[in-house]
Amino acid sequence: MMIWNEALRVVLDHALPLGPEMGPVCSSSEGAILAETIVADLDAPPFDKALMDGFALAGESPAFNEGWPLVNAVYAGDAQSGRLSQGHACPVATGARIPDGADRVVPFERTQKKDGILQVSDIPLSESFLARAGSDYRAGEVLLNSGTVLGPATTGALAAAARTAVRMIPIPIVAVISTGDELVEPNRKPMGSQIRNSNGPMLLSAIHQAGCLPKYLGIAPDCPNTLKNLILEGLTHPVLILSGGVSVGEKDFVRPMLETLGVKVLVHGIKLKPGRPFLFGITQKGGLVFGLPGNPTSALANFDLLIYPALLAMRGYTNPGPHFQTGIMGEALFANNNRPTLRPVGVKPEAGEFIVKDLGAKGSFELGVLTRSQGWLELPMGQWDIPKGSEVRILIPKLSAMVATLLQNA
Amino acid sequence: MMIWNEALRVVLDHALPLGPEMGPVCSSSEGAILAETIVADLDAPPFDKALMDGFALAGESPAFNEGWPLVNAVYAGDAQSGRLSQGHACPVATGARIPDGADRVVPFERTQKKDGILQVSDIPLSESFLARAGSDYRAGEVLLNSGTVLGPATTGALAAAARTAVRMIPIPIVAVISTGDELVEPNRKPMGSQIRNSNGPMLLSAIHQAGCLPKYLGIAPDCPNTLKNLILEGLTHPVLILSGGVSVGEKDFVRPMLETLGVKVLVHGIKLKPGRPFLFGITQKGGLVFGLPGNPTSALANFDLLIYPALLAMRGYTNPGPHFQTGIMGEALFANNNRPTLRPVGVKPEAGEFIVKDLGAKGSFELGVLTRSQGWLELPMGQWDIPKGSEVRILIPKLSAMVATLLQNA
Repeated sequence: MMIWNEALRVVLDHALPLGPEMGPVCSSSEGAILAETIVADLDAPPFDKALMDGFALAGESPAFNEGWPLVNAVYAGDAQSGRLSQGHACPVATGARIPDGADRVVPFERTQKKDGILQVSDIPLSESFLARAGSDYRAGEVLLNSGTVLGPATTGALAAAARTAVRMIPIPIVAVISTGDELVEPNRKPMGSQIRNSNGPMLLSAIHQAGCLPKYLGIAPDCPNTLKNLILEGLTHPVLILSGGVSVGEKDFVRPMLETLGVKVLVHGIKLKPGRPFLFGITQKGGLVFGLPGNPTSALANFDLLIYPALLAMRGYTNPGPHFQTGIMGEALFANNNRPTLRPVGVKPEAGEFIVKDLGAKGSFELGVLTRSQGWLELPMGQWDIPKGSEVRILIPKLSAMVATLLQNA
Repeated sequence: MMIWNEALRVVLDHALPLGPEMGPVCSSSEGAILAETIVADLDAPPFDKALMDGFALAGESPAFNEGWPLVNAVYAGDAQSGRLSQGHACPVATGARIPDGADRVVPFERTQKKDGILQVSDIPLSESFLARAGSDYRAGEVLLNSGTVLGPATTGALAAAARTAVRMIPIPIVAVISTGDELVEPNRKPMGSQIRNSNGPMLLSAIHQAGCLPKYLGIAPDCPNTLKNLILEGLTHPVLILSGGVSVGEKDFVRPMLETLGVKVLVHGIKLKPGRPFLFGITQKGGLVFGLPGNPTSALANFDLLIYPALLAMRGYTNPGPHFQTGIMGEALFANNNRPTLRPVGVKPEAGEFIVKDLGAKGSFELGVLTRSQGWLELPMGQWDIPKGSEVRILIPKLSAMVATLLQNA
């Protein structure tokens, strides 16, 4: 059985970004990865502009002893502006083009106006409070590199470069099938030995959190034909996640059915607690197929450790993680694990540190504990007496993704 | 003029969560704040269940010397299961109900089957590999507190409790108006002194990043009537952000127009560089109105420091930040600031630390620098010689929001 790091390597080897496509740049492209180099089409600023509301001045001395004769106002957006003669002033607004001849701007607060003459109390140095054309960047300069994560500033820069659509890595659709005769949808009352399908909604939320598009295909009862049809539909998507049915029980049809349908299983079973039955395979077209155990803690541990990074890699992130953090044990913990373990724990940010709170998790079936957890405490195999205050390794899924984003742009 | 912390307090005093509404629980409710207490309607597990694929055993000794007589299979979801007699075994799948009388489960791997008799190599202790009904949580128990952030595990728990819709804090719509005669939309070629509107798209992306719904209302030229109509439309939303037109220039109609339309201006001008002209007001109905300077760095600094936390507060987060982090200067920096400053910097996660890289930002007009930044270096007013390796305070907007999420659930 593989250790989880090996399984992760196998998964990431096959988690390739989808081919770039043209897409509109909009608020929801935040987080997408740019797949072309963006070159500025114009200088920025496109003209010499004022950085303050006030007056553009030409030279360091006024035209007359009594002050700076004022000429026409220049507001932001005015198309033409004449040349400002030596010793003259003209009102300008922040962002406005300043006239040729002007070599500095004096802020409004340092001036007084009387009879068309401006008094300036403290004449700024040449080039003060103005930005010359092209001083931000020049036409033809690379503005954004391929591989950049789109966010507020980069979206602004695309707008400035007139790029309302760009090549970017498309967001993968991730299909989810829940398996098991015991499952009913949450809006139904479970009878006898039935339980409500909570893993389906949990995984859809996790897929959304990883920035992908979740697509729920429904519950497959333990009946080969229904399972076959749902899997066939699932395999049309770049990623398919099956929840349940991957252990070695007699009714676990998932693996044989996947293999019948051409999926090559590369990982089945890893040294991890919970989440040992983890299955990973690929389709002939390079699609990814994951099989997760039915217990919620096991399924989410597998997702956060192995699938979340794979989804980031498919979205084009080159350092997809998982990125562990250092946490500080808020209390002593004795752990005795026959496999490397991910333990759901509470995490409280305090004075720049992540204080780890044990939640007394007893087993992988505990959804109650999972709802109170905010991360995973990683523990190696063996018996460990972990004193209060010790440094430990923790995985906070969204924080791991944020680190991936910072590394992408760094 | 207020220092920014005072301005933040004024803003947060008025950034109240919208009234809770029933909403469907779906993948995109991730990040929303639950506004009711969720009580379990059933025990979890609802019955005694197996945690491994294997065999349920009744008692610690087999019925006969030769082994454990096998009775009917019990798979996950089977409605009825008889009572297992002392010394007998019955096959069970992970998650399946175990029959009455069974007191332990032995994993498949430790067994051999021959002629309907099971050989068990290492009989587990009583209660091994099974979960008793209600051992996760009991019907009537509080499963999720009001105020919980919805995410994968909590969404799973809502499904388990049959809650396909819950009361939650609605996500605010945030309207954006760009102002200024000089602006043209990004798909148009700027003529003369015009520039493309990059702040609009930048703010829409920032609003999306803050988990709110951006609504773009267009460009208001410096014409009171058009501005009035756009502002009237903007004021119908819980939040309105105006970009540009808030300084003291002659054509800055924004503040007087807001006041004419009943907006009470509570903050105008803060001790911050860039972003001094920041304006904040409230409508009679409690809506928030923000006015931002037109320069991109100023606008984004105002947004990340003052508006992002306000939006999180409106979404129901009780510790909305901004949550600063400790960064380590990756190089020496000399700074000379006449106001408290937010400087756009690169941030690279390295061995658990955030290494801060100065980008040589010269002014608030530089969109180019802003696209290469991942956070803000906070510097107090004055001259500072900051050696390489010093600890500094940095703000990484999405990380700040993540800390807010952890604190919410802690």
